Order: sequence, then structure tokens, then C-alpha cells
Amino acid sequence: MTTVTLLTDDELSPAAKAVFDDIRATRNSDFVNNFWRALAHDPKTLKRTWESIKEVMAPGALDPKTKEMLYVAVSIAHGCAYCIHSHTAGARAKGMTDEEYAEMVAIVGMASETNRLVTALGVPTDEAFLVGSPEGSGAAKGRPD
Amino acid sequence: MTTVTLLTDDELSPAAKAVFDDIRATRNSDFVNNFWRALAHDPKTLKRTWESIKEVMAPGALDPKTKEMLYVAVSIAHGCAYCIHSHTAGARAKGMTDEEYAEMVAIVGMASETNRLVTALGVPTDEAFLVGSPEGSGAAKGRPD
Amino acid sequence: MTTVTLLTDDELSPAAKAVFDDIRATRNSDFVNNFWRALAHDPKTLKRTWESIKEVMAPGALDPKTKEMLYVAVSIAHGCAYCIHSHTAGARAKGMTDEEYAEMVAIVGMASETNRLVTALGVPTDEAFLVGSPEGSGAAKGRPD
Amino acid sequence: MTTVTLLTDDELSPAAKAVFDDIRATRNSDFVNNFWRALAHDPKTLKRTWESIKEVMAPGALDPKTKEMLYVAVSIAHGCAYCIHSHTAGARAKGMTDEEYAEMVAIVGMASETNRLVTALGVPTDEAFLVGSPEGSGAAKGRPD
Amino acid sequence: MTTVTLLTDDELSPAAKAVFDDIRATRNSDFVNNFWRALAHDPKTLKRTWESIKEVMAPGALDPKTKEMLYVAVSIAHGCAYCIHSHTAGARAKGMTDEEYAEMVAIVGMASETNRLVTALGVPTDEAFLVGSPEGSGAAKGRPD
Amino acid sequence: MTTVTLLTDDELSPAAKAVFDDIRATRNSDFVNNFWRALAHDPKTLKRTWESIKEVMAPGALDPKTKEMLYVAVSIAHGCAYCIHSHTAGARAKGMTDEEYAEMVAIVGMASETNRLVTALGVPTDEAFLVGSPEGSGAAKGRPD
Repeated sequence: MTTVTLLTDDELSPAAKAVFDDIRATRNSDFVNNFWRALAHDPKTLKRTWESIKEVMAPGALDPKTKEMLYVAVSIAHGCAYCIHSHTAGARAKGMTDEEYAEMVAIVGMASETNRLVTALGVPTDEAFLVGSPEGSGAAKGRPD
Repeated sequence: MTTVTLLTDDELSPAAKAVFDDIRATRNSDFVNNFWRALAHDPKTLKRTWESIKEVMAPGALDPKTKEMLYVAVSIAHGCAYCIHSHTAGARAKGMTDEEYAEMVAIVGMASETNRLVTALGVPTDEAFLVGSPEGSGAAKGRPD
Repeated sequence: MTTVTLLTDDELSPAAKAVFDDIRATRNSDFVNNFWRALAHDPKTLKRTWESIKEVMAPGALDPKTKEMLYVAVSIAHGCAYCIHSHTAGARAKGMTDEEYAEMVAIVGMASETNRLVTALGVPTDEAFLVGSPEGSGAAKGRPD
Repeated sequence: MTTVTLLTDDELSPAAKAVFDDIRATRNSDFVNNFWRALAHDPKTLKRTWESIKEVMAPGALDPKTKEMLYVAVSIAHGCAYCIHSHTAGARAKGMTDEEYAEMVAIVGMASETNRLVTALGVPTDEAFLVGSPEGSGAAKGRPD
Repeated sequence: MTTVTLLTDDELSPAAKAVFDDIRATRNSDFVNNFWRALAHDPKTLKRTWESIKEVMAPGALDPKTKEMLYVAVSIAHGCAYCIHSHTAGARAKGMTDEEYAEMVAIVGMASETNRLVTALGVPTDEAFLVGSPEGSGAAKGRPD
Repeated sequence: MTTVTLLTDDELSPAAKAVFDDIRATRNSDFVNNFWRALAHDPKTLKRTWESIKEVMAPGALDPKTKEMLYVAVSIAHGCAYCIHSHTAGARAKGMTDEEYAEMVAIVGMASETNRLVTALGVPTDEAFLVGSPEGSGAAKGRPD
């Protein structure tokens, strides 16, 4: 149940239509999902969000399937049912097998458990896991000591 | 700041020591981190958690590095600083480059943004993303229609 | 799907009815929403919650529209769909335009993103943002140094 | 690191002092913790929060120890380190043994895991768990069918 | 709306069927809920989760009803509607009265409020609540100083 | 404790330096906080995040102070201590009084409480709060019926 209407193609402003055209071209498909249709009431946010998604989800050091799986994992932790469905479908479309899906879900469950156990016990971070310092103490850039 | 003390090797019960031995053997290292030392007050939970971690994080359809990165992503969403540090270190130890790390963090940020945008707007799930049904309507097992 | 029934006016205890009378008088409307009807099984909590809402949401240094928008923002972060709908409607009733709504939603999305980026990177708080201290070091009351 | 200073007894407004007097009398102790000292900048919220805590945490159908343990469990899920420490101490002061503490922490961990597994899979609620309905379909008040 | 189909008894693998048999025997009932039916696609996770639930929820220092109530409290904080329904039903089946339920819900609400107030104000943990230290400073094992 | 080092001005890549120059020019101040210094390891994300912040936080239908207060509210709900400090300081710099701050914090606390009460009870959304529909049923664009 949306707080705004879902815009049909006919209801789009020119700015929003331009974004929908790019979504279609980029994804090589005529389908534009409900999220974009709800967001289209605000063409600036629609455009910024779409441009960011394109940049963040482009193939890079991580492949598209892995990127989608990370997206699903975060969406589960945040309890966004829509996002879970749309990105699980996306991951499957990018080659995620049932076995990979099951392993990813099991990890999200296990991480959720240890996240809360650690928080409950207030465990202090081990020296071995620290990297760098505000005073520039000479730790290797981006790698643990 | 822990709610219980962190147990040294000398303070372990026999049941907890057995788990520490297995952690050391499995990880081929003498280092046992603060989380296990806090959890060691409850040897049953220590054992169950360690056995689960071994099973969930073993190489499978997903490789160990990808598994660690999923673990970090969930830990970020749940705000567990200890977990973020320990699993980021773990992912780096398993080969995660700075580039992969940056891409993963960017995805977690982007997913968090769209998770909340979707939730704000109350977007209904598209038909295209649905799979199966309680009534067994014939959808392909585990794959979108 | 409630875990308790939603009480009709006829089913209210005298204590709960007194609260419903005050809700109607305060809001100058006969409408009492489902939240109060579910909470009415526990008249003490119903009363305490209603009295708190009245105090917290009364016009003050912040105007009622801004107060409702803050309420929506928190409800989005917490993923409470009912709350999002009811307070979005409330904000609109208090004058929130579509443009203000869009800007608020965009902020919630952006804040969610940077909240997680910061958490991922474990950024330490800058000196410039600190105020006061437990030892009473003389920092200006309530203002940054 | 507080966003406001922690008020000493000398710095309290008369309204805030009245609340501190009641905290001391109710708890039969001179100790007033940092939370109340931070909240004391806003005597209205200080008073409302203290009055609510007194009402919610008073002995009732649930005993004080169980109430504190529920408070800790929620604080863990919400990641509030201060709250976890203060209410864990409170529960211990009310008789919680190390064994009860360990069992409670294990439950919080397990619940966190299954909460996310359920969310990942989007499991629909079983008919057997439903109670009541908006249309007043005759379900027993407050009890499952 | 599940991301996988809910498996009927006929669709279970032998490994999954063995777990369902144990669920039925342990709960002394033929009913197996939707969560297990969704999880059954991954017999390893199904088994590990069921074995963990059995261990964590067995009667111990805490009685089964208290354990279910803690489970509900965490599920509320995590916003898992399915879990809230299934464990609320479970708690009622184990003797939770409407009064106990109302008190538990009130505590979850109050804890959520103070969790966020504390977080907003960044309250530092009082010395009185600290226990132990990584350096082994001699604090009593498991009890505050 | 960061997972990467905080980059000094001397350590910036040209792309990152360009962003820092823009931050300084836009904010009319030489101060660049730790968040940007941590993010600077990934100039693409640094640039995209800064450009988005500029767009989202620019004066619009909502004034800058209100925008910062919304940002703080979300950061509290997400438990990001750094964000809470930095945006509380930002809101104060934009004119937020102690009274406005106190009211905002009280609202975040109250919203957190009712968010969880609603979730606990599984309250269904009232008809009166619904707007629009996927089938384009003619509801007024962006306004409740």
C-alpha cells in the first residue's frame, strides 16, 4: 500500500520519462518496476537514485551476481520485503543457483545471530583487527597490521 | 566493555577448552578472538555457535571470500562494530582487495538507501517478482515465473 | 493481522472509553484509528501512550507539521508500515505539500546510506563535534566547543 | 560522548530535582545514572520517561527480574550498549543468575537468526496463528482460535 | 509472499523428512508451520536451525513461557511479523495470560523509547555498570564490581 | 576505530582532492570531517555521496535546519553515533535551539515506542490512510482520499 500513486507511462513528466527510457535501454527490457513508478513523483530523486544504482551495480572488481547477492543480504537485514523479492529475482536472473541462494540466506541468519551475541556481551575489538589510526601511526593503508 | 569477563585459556572449562582446541585446529592458528572468550562462559552456546559457523562458512557453492563479504554486509546493516572489524579482517585474509571492499561498502550504502525509500513509499511487490504460493499453484520450484 | 482483536466502541472498558473520548475531543473528530483499538485491551498503556503523544506532539518550538514529518522519518527507519501511513496522512493533514514530502523521503534515504557508510568504515567522531564530558570539563552547556 | 552535558545535582532545575528525588526514593539509593543526567536538560521528558518507567517496570503479572530481562533483550536487538549494560546490571541486582543470563542471550541470538531467515524467505503467516479481524469475525478476544 | 515455494510433505527430501518427523515428535503434534516448509529447500540449514531451537528453547533456568516471551520481544524489535505471530501463539500455548502479554508489549515499547533516547544523547556507560576488562583487572567473574 | 586509514590532505588522489576542494568551497570552511577522509579511499563513492548530499540538503521546500533535524532523527533510529554527533552539530550551526533539540529527541523516542507497539500488535492500516493503488483506481495523486 503506497503513500503515493504508482505512475503509469502516460503520467510521467518529461524528466521522469527520460529516466525510464534509460532504465529500459540499460536493462534491455520494457519492464519498469513499481519502485521506479512510485519514485517518479520526484524526478530529481528518481534520476539520482537510478544514476547511483547504475554506478554501484556495474560490473567491477565484484561481478554482477555477487553484487546482487550483497544487495539481498542487506535488504534482509533491513526487512524490506519488496527489495528482498526484487533483488532475489535479480540475482537469479544473473545466475544465482538455488544452492548459492541457500548458502547466502544461511549466512545472513548466522551473521544476525552472532551480531546480536557480540552486542549482548559488549565484546571489545581485538588489537589484531585494528587498522590505521587518526594520528597516522604508520599502519599499512587499507590493510590490517 | 563486556557484560562478562573475557576468559583466558587458563579459565576455560573442559567443554570450552575442547571448542578452543577445535577453533585453533580449524583455523590453523593459535589466535582465539575476544568473541569466543566472552562466549566461553556458556560452553553450550559456544559449541553450538562454533559448529554452526564452521558449517555455514565452509567452502561451498560460494567461496570463502564471498561468504565473508556477505557477513560484513549484514554486520554493517546491524551496526555491530566488533563484527565489522573482525569479518573485514577475515575477508582481507581471504583475498578481498581494497577495490572489492570499496565496492561492497558502496553497495551496502546504496541498498540501505533504496531499502528505506521503498519502505517510505510502501511499494507493492510486482507480480513479476513473485514465486510459488501456499496453495502450490505450479510455479517452478525456487525460480521466478 | 493483529495478535489481539480490534475493539469496537461497544467493547471498551470504562477506562478505555475515557481515553477514546479524549482522543475524539482533542482531535475534534469521531475517527479513532486501529492502533488505539488494538491498544485498548490494555487501558493503562492506552492512557499512558495517548497522554505522552499529546505532550510530545503539542505545538512547541517545533510546529505540528515538522513534528509529524520527524515522526514519519523515524517510522520509515524502523520499517513500521502502519505508522508510515498514519503519520504521512497526519503530516498531509497538517499542511505537508508533495514537495516537502519528497524532500523528506529523499533525506531519509540519504541519511540511511551515510549512516551505513559511516558504520562500515568505523569513523571516529571528530573533536569538533564533541560537547561536554562526564568529568565536567567546562564545555558550554548544550553547545559544541 | 554525549550531545549534551551530564548535569550534576547542583545544575538541576527544580523540576528536574523533583524527579531525581523520586528516583532516589523509589530505588532506595543515592545513585542516579548518566541517562537521567543527560535527560535532565528537558525536565518534561525526564518526568514523563521516569513516570512511564515506574509504571511499566512495577511488579505485576510479570516479576521485576523477568521485566528487566525483557528490557535487556530489546536493548540488544536495538544495539544500545548503554542500555544493555545498565539493564543487565539491573537484572543481576534483581536476582538473575549467570545461567539465566546465558539462556537469555542465547535466545536473543537464536531469535535474531530466525527473524532474518523468515524475512529472507518471506514466509506467509499460518492460519493457525491468526487471531481476530477488523470486521469482528468472532475470534475469541485476545486468544488464538 | 515467499521467495521459494512452501514444500508439502510429499515434496520433502529424506533429510528434510527426518527433521519434520522430529518436529512432530518433539511438539507432539502433526502441525508443521510455514517457516519449516520454506526452509526445507535447504535440509542442512533446516536441521541445524531445528536442533538449535530445541537446545535453546528447552526448559532450563528459564521456563518455556519466559523463553517464548523473550523470543516475541526480540521479534518485535526486529519487525518480523511472522515470528511475532508464531511466537505469540507459542507463548499463549505455554500459559501466557493476556495480562502478561500486555505487560511484555508495554516493556518492549518503553525499552524501544529509552534505547533511542540514550542513543540520541550518546550517554556514556556509568562506572557502576562495568564488569571485568580485557586486561584481567580482577573483577568478579560475571558480576558487576 | 576505522577499517581503513583516515586520509590527510597530502594523501588524496587528484579525484578525491577535487571533491575536498568543493566541500571546502560549498561549506565556506577549511574543515573536512573524518567521514570524508575515510571515504576518500574510494573517490567514485566520495564524489557520488558528496554530490547527493549537496542536492538533498540544499534549501528547498524544507529549510536547512529542518533538513538537518530529519537527518539526526534517522541517524538516531539507525544508531550511528558519528552521524548523530555530526548532524546534531550541523543542526545547531543552522540555528536549532536547545528547545527544538529536546522536542526532536522526545519525538524520536515516542515514535520508536509506538513503532514497536504497532508492530507487536500487527495493526492493519485503516482505510482512511490509504492512497492510490497499483491498478490506478483514480485516487488523488499524492493525497489521501
